Amino acid sequence: MLLFALDPDSATPAFAQIRDRVIGLIDAGTLGAGDRLPPTRAFAADLGVHRSTVVRAYDEIRALGYLESRSGSYTTIRRRVRLPAEAGPAPGPGRIDWSRAVAPAVRALHRLNAPDSAPADPGPVDLERVAADPRLAPAAELRRCVRYVLKRHAGEALDYAPAQGLLSLREVIARRLGVHGVDVPPDGILVTGGAQQAIDLVLRLLLRPGDAVAVGAPTYGMMHALLRLHGARPIEIPMRATGLDLDRLARILRRRPPRLIYTMPNFHNPTGVTTAQDHRERLLDLAVNARVPVLEDGFEEEMKYFGRAVLPLKSMDAHGIVLYVGTFSKVVFPGLRLGWIAAPPEAVQRLAAIQRASCLSGNTLAQATAARFCASGEFEVYLRRVHREYRKRMLALLDGLQAHLPRHVSWTRPIGGYTVWLEMPDRPNREDELYRRALESGVRMARGSRFFARAPRRTCFRLSIACATAPEITEGCRRLGAALA
Amino acid sequence: MLLFALDPDSATPAFAQIRDRVIGLIDAGTLGAGDRLPPTRAFAADLGVHRSTVVRAYDEIRALGYLESRSGSYTTIRRRVRLPAEAGPAPGPGRIDWSRAVAPAVRALHRLNAPDSAPADPGPVDLERVAADPRLAPAAELRRCVRYVLKRHAGEALDYAPAQGLLSLREVIARRLGVHGVDVPPDGILVTGGAQQAIDLVLRLLLRPGDAVAVGAPTYGMMHALLRLHGARPIEIPMRATGLDLDRLARILRRRPPRLIYTMPNFHNPTGVTTAQDHRERLLDLAVNARVPVLEDGFEEEMKYFGRAVLPLKSMDAHGIVLYVGTFSKVVFPGLRLGWIAAPPEAVQRLAAIQRASCLSGNTLAQATAARFCASGEFEVYLRRVHREYRKRMLALLDGLQAHLPRHVSWTRPIGGYTVWLEMPDRPNREDELYRRALESGVRMARGSRFFARAPRRTCFRLSIACATAPEITEGCRRLGAALA
Repeated sequence: MLLFALDPDSATPAFAQIRDRVIGLIDAGTLGAGDRLPPTRAFAADLGVHRSTVVRAYDEIRALGYLESRSGSYTTIRRRVRLPAEAGPAPGPGRIDWSRAVAPAVRALHRLNAPDSAPADPGPVDLERVAADPRLAPAAELRRCVRYVLKRHAGEALDYAPAQGLLSLREVIARRLGVHGVDVPPDGILVTGGAQQAIDLVLRLLLRPGDAVAVGAPTYGMMHALLRLHGARPIEIPMRATGLDLDRLARILRRRPPRLIYTMPNFHNPTGVTTAQDHRERLLDLAVNARVPVLEDGFEEEMKYFGRAVLPLKSMDAHGIVLYVGTFSKVVFPGLRLGWIAAPPEAVQRLAAIQRASCLSGNTLAQATAARFCASGEFEVYLRRVHREYRKRMLALLDGLQAHLPRHVSWTRPIGGYTVWLEMPDRPNREDELYRRALESGVRMARGSRFFARAPRRTCFRLSIACATAPEITEGCRRLGAALA
Repeated sequence: MLLFALDPDSATPAFAQIRDRVIGLIDAGTLGAGDRLPPTRAFAADLGVHRSTVVRAYDEIRALGYLESRSGSYTTIRRRVRLPAEAGPAPGPGRIDWSRAVAPAVRALHRLNAPDSAPADPGPVDLERVAADPRLAPAAELRRCVRYVLKRHAGEALDYAPAQGLLSLREVIARRLGVHGVDVPPDGILVTGGAQQAIDLVLRLLLRPGDAVAVGAPTYGMMHALLRLHGARPIEIPMRATGLDLDRLARILRRRPPRLIYTMPNFHNPTGVTTAQDHRERLLDLAVNARVPVLEDGFEEEMKYFGRAVLPLKSMDAHGIVLYVGTFSKVVFPGLRLGWIAAPPEAVQRLAAIQRASCLSGNTLAQATAARFCASGEFEVYLRRVHREYRKRMLALLDGLQAHLPRHVSWTRPIGGYTVWLEMPDRPNREDELYRRALESGVRMARGSRFFARAPRRTCFRLSIACATAPEITEGCRRLGAALA
């Protein structure tokens, strides 16, 4: 016999009170496996409720696993798996060892998971981070754009997006690409969750495990992480002051062509090198003759703040061999995760199928907001504002390095973008020591070894103007000069 | 000698006027390869501008690829690759054939790219779509949440998110999981771009090409697309009225254990089956004994609108063997693309590393908005509202089927969720014909074959209450009864 009374004034319905009290008695051990609950009719009479109330309570108690479910015996309490304690599963022989259960590619990847640090404030001068400066973010403008979207197009903006991305966004992207000499219709564009996801999709499109990809040495560090995840092999092509070493690339294309060539013709990350027209044309010729697709990473296409605009490879792509990747993240709102691929329609369809299988659709609200941000003209206003700022910052960096760095350090002189590459040819293998010394002096920069599969002996660092103001950069150069002396 | 005058009243700066005029002459063929531009000093004098203006114009013309870049001869016009016409690259021998260039897994995938159709209005009654009804979307509430986020936390919300996702969102997810009996700290949660991306990450964590995954027959259709993309092999376990056939699973685990078991214990898609406590415990025992991880897809955990709550496998996972996937998309705002994985920390770290390599970070603005939506209590208010609505819809469907379907059709009776499964055991191989007939009668449903790797002979369909009102559903049943008679 169960002895308790219901609270008629409670906001909790009677059936839920019965359910909770009975479960409380079981959890406390007052009722145990094999014990029986009273018949519903008698129990209802005792409690002064309708029998259906007790039936509902028993149904829920059974659903929660406290009762035997054989018919005719549903009022018997059953042995029940004990829930794990709040501290998490107990160690023991049945426990899975996740460090060994995973695929080999993931084991190699795990060591690489060192995220770009967010801008530190206060702290060392941040000459490391490469992404739009959050202090320049157009928050008020975006607020207007989101409000507009959620007032006019809420149903659409909160639902799944079409596989290729919202047409309104693809139209403004096509228009921006036109500014940079790339003629592509909205149907030739796939919207992605940033440039990184775009590159991942291209690798999924083309690679089988063990395939090779030609990359710069150095190149974008997270490209190496992605190649590992795909079980792919990087073929490192040395970066010269003029761009990828095309003689080396030509030899490799003759002997053992890779599945893909990865290149960043403008404001190369990390070196800051922008290639000339004839370099681009020769690279394209080599790829076409070898029939090897080119992945052109235009991650900073919008950062031509000195005005000298070399057109992307994609603008000269007469053979549909270039897969062009772009992104908003390096110039504005990385947190919206919006990038794109411009490619021949047959490639776009296949990339969209992969994207659909791997994440169903992109973020519709972000896409609609960005489309509005561009279509309303806010993007161009924003670009003019940040171009002025980044021009100032890059000049501050180049002046500061000239004024403060010792003679044994050489560096690149970019015509746009965020990054400058330092090399110390006669100071081999001193990355750790000099990195630490710079940090102690109050400057953070990126270790050069991050950008290679096999790090070279010479000591290198990448500097970035993305998240430091001109005065901070000038001060950073002074400190760096002392640290590297 | 070049003959043109600058427009002193133009908004276009002088250097840009010079650049555009010269390029116009080259593009028109007036100037050709080998022709020389006038020396800067003389040309500046002719035009009445400072020499530096002409130098800047020449710099840009050179950067655009129109001039030889050898030093000393920079005023010579060079042969230049012709840009592709607006219609896209011309066909020809050098053109890449993208249907053959792609990896084999992608070739198999391409055929599968048939998206869930959006709700049609007006048109047939939509009993096909499985996703939050856009007509129930909490647009005004979200507008408030976005405004709050962009006023108070714009810098953070527009920047990259931490690798695991915003802590504020992981906290509210942990709280919601607690409601469903899963005790997991925020550190045991990885935020993803929806459940589909979560599943993709789990497959990337565990699978090598050729690995096998145990799935239901039928199962979630896009799981088959993902398995193809991964080059993985589905092992189909028959779905019974009580859930996966565990005797069959036990035999398979003994003979040739798969790398992973995929299961949806609540409101299984497509059948609508919810398994009982003892089925869950036995499934877990089998997995633990075979040491095979379980991917539990809790895609409709929040859809317990009849109140009978069976707890997830994850709530009984004493061995850290269950990777639990959840999502907002099936109950609210699919367009924000937010899902999660609850797993042992060692697995979460590795999944976060894969996510970082494949897309850098999740959508921060969406994460912050959803966190605010939950923390402010709006989510629970919304849930109560849609629970009432979906209860009504499911009852309308079950009543309508009872009233209108002919005797040779059998169907499941779900205790929550969106889907009901129709089978016609003595009408084999008539999917195409009956699907067409239903559509002609004004009802759209999902073909049963979508949910199998190898479709069975018996004819099956999935019905969904997600995007049709109760009156629409009642009318749909009437039409369906006529179509299937």
